[in-house]
Formats: sequence, structure tokens, C-alpha cells
Amino acid sequence: MSAALIALDWGTTNRRGWALSASGDVIDERADGEGLLSLEKDAFAPSFARFVEPWKVLDRKLPAIMCGMVGSKLGWAEASYLSTPVDLSDLARSLLTVQFDGQFDVRIVPGVSAETGSVPDVMRGEECQVLAVLAESGLEKACLVLPGTHSKWVTVADGKLTGFRTYMTGEIFNALSAQGTLAQLMEKGPFDHTAFAFGLERAVSDGALTHQLFGVRTLGLFGRLKRPALASYLSGLLIGAEFADAISWAEARSVIAVGSPNLLENYRLAAQHFGIAVETRDNSTLLPPALFAIARAAGLIR
Amino acid sequence: MSAALIALDWGTTNRRGWALSASGDVIDERADGEGLLSLEKDAFAPSFARFVEPWKVLDRKLPAIMCGMVGSKLGWAEASYLSTPVDLSDLARSLLTVQFDGQFDVRIVPGVSAETGSVPDVMRGEECQVLAVLAESGLEKACLVLPGTHSKWVTVADGKLTGFRTYMTGEIFNALSAQGTLAQLMEKGPFDHTAFAFGLERAVSDGALTHQLFGVRTLGLFGRLKRPALASYLSGLLIGAEFADAISWAEARSVIAVGSPNLLENYRLAAQHFGIAVETRDNSTLLPPALFAIARAAGLIR
Repeated sequence: MSAALIALDWGTTNRRGWALSASGDVIDERADGEGLLSLEKDAFAPSFARFVEPWKVLDRKLPAIMCGMVGSKLGWAEASYLSTPVDLSDLARSLLTVQFDGQFDVRIVPGVSAETGSVPDVMRGEECQVLAVLAESGLEKACLVLPGTHSKWVTVADGKLTGFRTYMTGEIFNALSAQGTLAQLMEKGPFDHTAFAFGLERAVSDGALTHQLFGVRTLGLFGRLKRPALASYLSGLLIGAEFADAISWAEARSVIAVGSPNLLENYRLAAQHFGIAVETRDNSTLLPPALFAIARAAGLIR
Repeated sequence: MSAALIALDWGTTNRRGWALSASGDVIDERADGEGLLSLEKDAFAPSFARFVEPWKVLDRKLPAIMCGMVGSKLGWAEASYLSTPVDLSDLARSLLTVQFDGQFDVRIVPGVSAETGSVPDVMRGEECQVLAVLAESGLEKACLVLPGTHSKWVTVADGKLTGFRTYMTGEIFNALSAQGTLAQLMEKGPFDHTAFAFGLERAVSDGALTHQLFGVRTLGLFGRLKRPALASYLSGLLIGAEFADAISWAEARSVIAVGSPNLLENYRLAAQHFGIAVETRDNSTLLPPALFAIARAAGLIR
């Protein structure tokens, strides 16, 4: 089976790439750590050439499509944001073309933006995962969450991505666990269900999040939670604040949680806690069919 | 005028000390950077001896009283927490005595704790500032805020400290300004009134704080706020979240903001924004009379 399309998910710290057949099957897969943070502006083209070398992309002039932060200000070239509502064909019509090596083009999928109260919100890469889930499930209306450093809640109606909200849940968890007055008391330990559920409960009780967070310290200080359980409590507070806001905003009674299995478990528990139905979807195999579908809609595949 | 009492505010990173006369006047003042973080457990006694050496405390066996984190688990000795409601005479009755040098005692003021939904809250040192403001103003009922790394809102009724809430406003501002996806776009600049007011406004609009925080990034990304204005916007979001929660919790129509002048200005603006009356009080001269009053009530002054 010979490759008909090269697809890349090129992010801040990592990149993954797939060689796909003319019918969208994954023929080969590669991954490395040459994300945006490790590359200067003029290093993207040579880095791409090295990455796809095993697939003879340049000799064969194979079409290439990529999504993720590679299309941001700090990436290879800046692809615009499309405003919601957006569907797959909108993305396919708006690919950014980057000339490469004088005779060869690569395409970058645009990001998506939404606006609330004159504050914009943005995503890059998640839109492809959302559209892949829609294509796979046949759903026309749904609410999805993509947990992570910046967790995204996405609403879909009539097969279009109609709105979304970003929550800095993962980044704030990491920042407060790494140093400061909460980190001082936190110790590594296994996930603690009781502490996590307690955090979810406190997250929706009276008190701003910046007040509730101080409870991570005092519960440790007073020995009400063991130090190895404090991270689970912190996680419960942050995910609880995210859930309470997001399900009210999305008016969701069910959610599809899309991500890596280790992140999905907390979101599954939180959904149960908040009384909404939840379905989980491992995202590791989602992007190749999504990028293939966009490339086909854009007429890139011969 | 000869010293009758030595008073210390011994915190995490700094300490200040005063030699007070028998009538409570400040005769001399010292400060250095030997806070808790720079001292091992057995280094407190020798460090204290060096600090008070100019005042001949040991020769003259002067009484010494101290407040702040010196009474915490990581301090010289752990002073308990008194539960709210608490007044000055409660503190005076509960001083921790630490024997020093075999023949000399120092006293540490206890902290104060409050409880909400089985999560404790704590303060150490702020209670002395609050009681000093009460003594000075003659107020029996008030709401006070002490801005800082951990901002404290305190309610007072019948001359007693009846309740309080801690907000990690300063610590989270510092953490997000130091590194991460918000810090990447933030640039040093003068305080920006418009951006700060916009942050206060967004803080009370629909959307969890972890969602609103992402707006610091997107407003910078889209050029809606200049990079040197992003810190003021972030400050507005965090102080706004604190205010909205605290004034509703305290049912406050007015507040006394107590702290260093550079922190008070933002709180004064926020109080105006939220339509509550505000009075500000520089805290640099508050502690000596408060510690003197506690020492006198405890019978420490001959």
C-alpha cells in the first residue's frame, strides 16, 4: 500500500505524523519531540524534511496537511482563526498553504475562535478531534470536553462546532503543584477518590475558587487530608469549577470526553458526580481520519 | 526613655522588631531578612539573640512578644490557633511561652482559625493588625481586607473578630505572571486603569475564573490589550473575583483596606467599582501598639 497523504499533529512540545493510503488507512506512524518550543522560525522547513524523510515525501511530492500549534504565531506560519460556527468543509476551504522547497506545498488547518463579551477564545487542533468524533459517531448535536493543559468544552449543533470555552485547569493544577504554599504540603501519591469527590463538592459550594484553593493548604495543615491526597483534592476543586461552569454554559445533559485515557478517568468521575451522562473516547487514533477527511474535502488527494 | 518591651513581627521572608517604652512609644526599630525560610529549627534562638542584641534584651531580661509565621509549624515553636470569635484579651490569655537561654521567656501570639463546610481557614499576624485597627478606630463592627500574597477578608462584630476568608490572589497573580502561557505574552508596564477595570468587570460576568484567565492570553494574542496592560487585566480578574465573593459573604457595604500603600490602591479602585465605601490604612505602624496592648493585657509589662 503506498502513501497518498502525509498528516501531522505538530504541537508545542511534540509532533506525531502519519502516512495515509488513498483510502485513509494508516500505513506508518512517527513521533518525536521537535515541538514549537525547540524550533526557531526558519528551522520548521528543514525539521519537516527530516521528519518525513522515511516516507520519501519530497521525491514523490506527496500532499501534506498539518494541524496544531504549528499554525500559531510561534509556529511555521500563522494560519488564521475561523469564527464559530465551523464545520469540516469550512476548515477544508481555509487551509493555509506554505510553500516548501520551491516546488512543494504543505497545508495548515486554521484554528477556530469564539467571542464572549469582547473577549476572544481560541483553539488549534482540538477542532479536528471534535469533527472526527462527529464523523465517527454521526452525531449532529453534542457537547464534548477535551481535557488537558487547557481544557476545551465544545458545543455542536447541526453538525457544526457552534461554540467553545477554554479552562486553564491543567496549567493551574501544574503551576500550584510545582511550587508555592500548596505545593509545600503536597506529596506524591495514588489518586484518592474520596479527596477528589470532596474537591468536586467544595468547588460548587459558597466561596470563590481563589478562596477554595487555600483549603488545599489548611486541610493538609490540620491533617484532615493526608499529604499524598492533596493533589486529588486540588484536582477535584479545579475540575469541579470547570464542570459546574461548562455544563451550565453548554446546557449539557451528556458529554463526550475526548483525550488520553489517564485524563479521562477524572472527567468520567466528575460527570457522574454532576449527574450528567458521559462517554469517553481515547483520542490517540482520532486525528488521521479527521485530517484525511479535510484533505479530501480540500481536493488534496489524487 | 528606656525599653520596656520588645515586639517582633517575624514572617516567612522578613522580620521587623521594635523596642517600646513602658507607655508603648516606639524607641527604636530594626528589620532584616532572616525570615523562616532562611532558618533551620534550632537557629531561631541564636538568630533572635543576634537580632535583639543592640537592645540589651538578655542582660535586662526584657519581655518579648512576637507574631507572624514564627508561631507556625515551620517557625520557632508552634502556637495553636484560636477559633473565631476572638478578641484581644483572648489572644493575650493564650500566648505561647518559649523558654530561651534557660532564664528568659519569649511569647508568641496564637493564630486564628475559622471553619466552613469542614474546611479550616487560618491566619497568623493579620489578627493583630485587625485588632490594632479596631483599637485605633473604636469600631465595634466592621469589614476589613488585608491584601497580599494571601488576601484576608475579616468581619468584626461586638469588637470581636468573628470570621474571615483567605484568597490566594497575590500568589496566583505571581505564579501566572512568572511563567506559563499567560506570562509568555505579559510585558512589564505601568498600571493600566482601563485594563484593570475591564478585568473587574469580566470577573463577575458569566464564566469560571479558570476560563476568564485564558482571556489574558487571547486579548494579548488578538492585540485587544497591549502586552504591558495584561498584568493589570489579570490583577482585575483576580481582585474582582475576590471582591465579588467577599462582599457577598461579609454582607459588606464598606470596607477598611489595611496594607502597604502600593497594594491598597488597586483595592480602593475595586471597592469603588463594586460600589462599596472604602477607607485605607497603611499597616506599617499598626503592629507595635497592637503587640503592646496584648503584652499589657497579658501582664508582661512591669
